[in-house]
Amino acid sequence: MHTYQELFSYFTESLKEQKFEKSPGELYSPIQYCLSFGGKRIRPVMTLMACELFEQPYQKALPQAIAIELFHNFTLIHDDIMDDAPLRRGKITVYKKWNPNIAILAGDTLFALAYQYAIQAETHLLPVILPLFNQTAIEVCEGQQFDLNFEERNEVTIEEYLNMIKLKTAVLFATSLKIGAVIGGASKKDAEHLYNFGLNLGIGFQIQDDLLDTFGNEAVFGKKTGGDIVTNKKTYLYLYALQQADGQDKQLLLDLYGGQQVPEKEKIEKVTAVFNKLKVKEEVQKVIDGYLEKALECLENISVPRERLTTLISVANKMIYREK
Amino acid sequence: MHTYQELFSYFTESLKEQKFEKSPGELYSPIQYCLSFGGKRIRPVMTLMACELFEQPYQKALPQAIAIELFHNFTLIHDDIMDDAPLRRGKITVYKKWNPNIAILAGDTLFALAYQYAIQAETHLLPVILPLFNQTAIEVCEGQQFDLNFEERNEVTIEEYLNMIKLKTAVLFATSLKIGAVIGGASKKDAEHLYNFGLNLGIGFQIQDDLLDTFGNEAVFGKKTGGDIVTNKKTYLYLYALQQADGQDKQLLLDLYGGQQVPEKEKIEKVTAVFNKLKVKEEVQKVIDGYLEKALECLENISVPRERLTTLISVANKMIYREK
Repeated sequence: MHTYQELFSYFTESLKEQKFEKSPGELYSPIQYCLSFGGKRIRPVMTLMACELFEQPYQKALPQAIAIELFHNFTLIHDDIMDDAPLRRGKITVYKKWNPNIAILAGDTLFALAYQYAIQAETHLLPVILPLFNQTAIEVCEGQQFDLNFEERNEVTIEEYLNMIKLKTAVLFATSLKIGAVIGGASKKDAEHLYNFGLNLGIGFQIQDDLLDTFGNEAVFGKKTGGDIVTNKKTYLYLYALQQADGQDKQLLLDLYGGQQVPEKEKIEKVTAVFNKLKVKEEVQKVIDGYLEKALECLENISVPRERLTTLISVANKMIYREK
Repeated sequence: MHTYQELFSYFTESLKEQKFEKSPGELYSPIQYCLSFGGKRIRPVMTLMACELFEQPYQKALPQAIAIELFHNFTLIHDDIMDDAPLRRGKITVYKKWNPNIAILAGDTLFALAYQYAIQAETHLLPVILPLFNQTAIEVCEGQQFDLNFEERNEVTIEEYLNMIKLKTAVLFATSLKIGAVIGGASKKDAEHLYNFGLNLGIGFQIQDDLLDTFGNEAVFGKKTGGDIVTNKKTYLYLYALQQADGQDKQLLLDLYGGQQVPEKEKIEKVTAVFNKLKVKEEVQKVIDGYLEKALECLENISVPRERLTTLISVANKMIYREK
């Protein structure tokens, strides 16, 4: 078994060796640029880990790991257009550096390139891997659409929110793991356990994201906290607070998120005060812990010796209890 | 063997039966809307024809025919954003009717849905069909990028233009046919002949498009001619004229396409006058005839009885000698 760091290095080097330098340069430069951002590469590393879990060399899952990473980058490029985001991982986004047309097309091409890697598996595995990959691609689009819808809507339930982050974020973690498992020769049941591990982990990961945005340690988090509050984002924190708040606090939240003109700093303070009063941080942390617990339960159902699971357990803990 | 009309009806009915009515509606309504536009459905019908050519029931290639049509519609939705096009087949484009974000996402989803149909084939055919489908998807993106680039560039050679329309338009015709042939059990050689038939036909088809835009019969063509001239589009006609024109006419074309402020009607008249002087219509018609001829030669190399080829020959002639 290999460590996260070892698999990360292997993946990063392997990705660099791929040639995305064709003509026209206007199409391939943004692709190269976007892939050079780096990042934690959690998803592809998980694909490699899942493969190794079932005693197959992790290298066997490299094409699918690359497919997952290309797909993920395709969604980032298109999401940044839709969200009008100037920065991604501290770098200027593709659509800002070039233009929306190039970003649309570079994203489309990345999506097609992702499939070109996804199909590099033993033929008999294709009818398992590909429907899963497709289904996930569709679900990620659905999740993004729900996310866009929620920006426009006043009422969003926690249940709807959980479904949205499941689709937008968690299914890709789940599929990264399941595809690795399939390549590794896992049984149907074990592959499914790993999928559910990824699903719960992904949901916990996203709620942790919400938590860090408001309650993160700015020095560690690397950016100012409160961004979600400023942009009226209907995060788990906000939806939970809205559910728990009594008349006056509820109205305050609704007013502050409803377009009331309040200076940023004051708005963050006021909302955080309500959150604190309702112990939102502690309660949401419990919810996150619950998802991690569920994830680990799924992992323990897998029929491999417990010691083989330690790397995934450690990754799960790091993903959830991260500070940035 | 079935006629174009029979296969068209079968395809249209079958497409209608597909369910694209999931949640969120904001994502699936534009997809439904776009697919309801109709159109000639040339590409999917060709997939069915190619399958039947090798004595397999055309129904066998339905999933791939649907995949091709969904893919084609995905490219239309994204192209319309990039080209800022208000109308498509006389209907308001998706991004105008909704907004660019929804159009990006609906396109992405259509692309993923296309793959979901593409993979519905016998497992042993997947390693043939899918790389072809992927490669074509990538080439179509490259073609669109070249097309966008040419808008910005002053100098474009005829060779570059032909490569662009090959990628943007012709490879999808070629692949529609080849995938049908593969499903139909064609030999490698025959599948390749059919691919090359589609490639030459597609190039001829696109140049015919350029020709109709300037010299079409407005009553039959269904819209005003001269649109390409007004928008300074570097069509085959323009590039050929530029190549043939002497000093004065060449300068006139360069000025008229270089941003000189001339009323639309006058601009069309002046450019058409140069075209007429250089016999552009006749010369370009010869080029188109040449592509049709090459296409038909490819067809004749296929090892099936000649009488089985009549439908494809007739479709090719109709595609090239169409008036709208």
